[in-house]
Amino acid sequence: MKKLNGGFYPPQYTVFLSRKGEGCYVEDVKGRKYLDFASQICSNPLGYNHPAMIEVVKEYSFTAPVKVAGQDFFIEEHVRLLEELMKITPKSINSGFLINSGAEAVENALKICYKFTGRRLGVGFENAFHGRTLGALSFTKSKKLYYEGFPLLDSVTIEFSEQGAERLEKVLSENKAAFVIIEPVQGEGGYNIPTMKMMKTVRRVTKKYKVPLICDEIQSGMGRTGEWWAFQHFKIVPEVMTSAKALQVGAVLANKKMFPESGVISSTWGGGHRIDLAMAVAIIRTIKKEKLLKHNKRMGKVILGMLKELEEQELLINARGLGLMLAFDLPTKKARDEVVKENFKRGLLTLGCGEKSIRVIPPYIITELEAAEGIEIITQSLRKVLKQ
Amino acid sequence: MKKLNGGFYPPQYTVFLSRKGEGCYVEDVKGRKYLDFASQICSNPLGYNHPAMIEVVKEYSFTAPVKVAGQDFFIEEHVRLLEELMKITPKSINSGFLINSGAEAVENALKICYKFTGRRLGVGFENAFHGRTLGALSFTKSKKLYYEGFPLLDSVTIEFSEQGAERLEKVLSENKAAFVIIEPVQGEGGYNIPTMKMMKTVRRVTKKYKVPLICDEIQSGMGRTGEWWAFQHFKIVPEVMTSAKALQVGAVLANKKMFPESGVISSTWGGGHRIDLAMAVAIIRTIKKEKLLKHNKRMGKVILGMLKELEEQELLINARGLGLMLAFDLPTKKARDEVVKENFKRGLLTLGCGEKSIRVIPPYIITELEAAEGIEIITQSLRKVLKQ
Repeated sequence: MKKLNGGFYPPQYTVFLSRKGEGCYVEDVKGRKYLDFASQICSNPLGYNHPAMIEVVKEYSFTAPVKVAGQDFFIEEHVRLLEELMKITPKSINSGFLINSGAEAVENALKICYKFTGRRLGVGFENAFHGRTLGALSFTKSKKLYYEGFPLLDSVTIEFSEQGAERLEKVLSENKAAFVIIEPVQGEGGYNIPTMKMMKTVRRVTKKYKVPLICDEIQSGMGRTGEWWAFQHFKIVPEVMTSAKALQVGAVLANKKMFPESGVISSTWGGGHRIDLAMAVAIIRTIKKEKLLKHNKRMGKVILGMLKELEEQELLINARGLGLMLAFDLPTKKARDEVVKENFKRGLLTLGCGEKSIRVIPPYIITELEAAEGIEIITQSLRKVLKQ
Repeated sequence: MKKLNGGFYPPQYTVFLSRKGEGCYVEDVKGRKYLDFASQICSNPLGYNHPAMIEVVKEYSFTAPVKVAGQDFFIEEHVRLLEELMKITPKSINSGFLINSGAEAVENALKICYKFTGRRLGVGFENAFHGRTLGALSFTKSKKLYYEGFPLLDSVTIEFSEQGAERLEKVLSENKAAFVIIEPVQGEGGYNIPTMKMMKTVRRVTKKYKVPLICDEIQSGMGRTGEWWAFQHFKIVPEVMTSAKALQVGAVLANKKMFPESGVISSTWGGGHRIDLAMAVAIIRTIKKEKLLKHNKRMGKVILGMLKELEEQELLINARGLGLMLAFDLPTKKARDEVVKENFKRGLLTLGCGEKSIRVIPPYIITELEAAEGIEIITQSLRKVLKQ
């Protein structure tokens, strides 16, 4: 595997997932069961083998190919998903371009803004993660390893803080920027939640200087934080937004007037994967039907409460979260990596982020009992690692 | 649809494909049947509802999610496809990174070469198409509309000709290039086939100046030309190659030593779509089992013969092709667009490319009877349009 996979990145643990699982639990190929606090990096909002998802794969079990050139040969699944998305986005955002990944969603968000403004400079934030393709990578700052040694596009990078937001006004007054791109809650860079003041300032100064604001909702969107989009917590509306992960496809969404003339953006497979598109529709409808936004808000508070208790016991640092987008810190990277490993040994899947954080991102369907089970494992792991 | 889809690009005809179809024929949602000479832009090598493909979707009809974070949580489908790919690539190419699209495959090919050489300048060709993300777009020259007004990475662009290949030596002797990227048969830019001498020169001078050669096989690869990879027709081996379209996923393939250190390249969904990965394996095995490489070579000659006859009758210009990657020209763009439209009216799906070319790219399973049927429709369309 190491040799075959040129992109091999040794995680803290190696697991081969089987196709068996139910709810928040998944089995590996050896038949071992895990409670999932990682949700395929937020790509799996409904857990394993949810009836609504199984209905989709069953429906397509006599369809081949499932993947078509969706910008040239239309399919109804494409239209259905765009319609469904427009029901859960702000009114001013009335058009979308569906694409193959989060990185491609960001690439197209940038392209739309470069073209719309006729400008060449982009502004992003420290610790941001927007993807690995060279355009998106130009605004990805979470780890030096990701971008060092590559030719990148012109960018200015701002501190992800209230002070940074203040400095943004100076940057925009001195430069003609094509866009400001921000994750309303930073993901890979450490699950950093901005203050209301910071986000309001970002929105105010981008409006003042007529610079389109891109909200990257690839990790934070699709209901994880208890709102459809994390920017809603801050009562702002961006000009352009991206989605992917929980959506199953990539999407860049904006007002139709932001999109460039026909032919400027396209993609062979964009909007052309019948199963992924139908799955996305089923996920949105299930989140509504099972009232999971409300559930995520409530369960987020429950789990944050549990993490805060562990913080009081000095077992962890900086418990934080919005809805089910939660995280906490360890004193060192080493301790973090060991806790992730210990969690795995005890049957809990977790993922690191930032320098020394651990994400707590269970599927939306998690119950209080399952939350308690996961937190109990984390407590055991913390005790073991901190004792060493 | 026009308003909802921000990436809407009005084709010469609008068709909504149903899931019904068999072999080279597909039905639209109104129940109209079409013979397919477009193969979802080479993404559909086995035609519609091929038993080997149906077996895959059936197999996964009780699996959800089908899409996982494949670089963190491994799945066997990922390993199986890498193993399968290594059986059909040159011996020196022994590792791969699976990714979400052709554009992303190219982005990663570029990243691998930038990092491997420590250089910043890339060299590409006129009329090339490598994708629409901003890195790949920097080397996409087939239409000005695609790249105009965007910030791009440093590039030198060479004429796609023997003279161009000669000039490449001068360029490489005067500049430190990170890579030379070429489509062994140009796709979107006009189905341009290089001469043996041109490709040999490109390979010779890139070797001489130790510049990695990237062969972009996204459209030309996976057996369409009658060899697994179009570069095999020219008896050359590149350092890095890309695949996508007929493969159902994106892939960048190279010797393991070309890949950067762990963590430099990655992707949430890369190598994580169970159905697409399993479909890719089934497609490779079916091409072998049904001896479709040989069939593509033979049918390519048959169809090229038919096109040459039409050329002799002065109904078309410049019939050309390698295997089932065929095309011909009309005198003007307007005539080309009209022939594509007339074909559609008569029940034949075709696609333009270049300035005034039409692609002839049926599924690999096409029979002589179906070829004759399609060519008959093309003949009728040509007669109608040229009479006007």
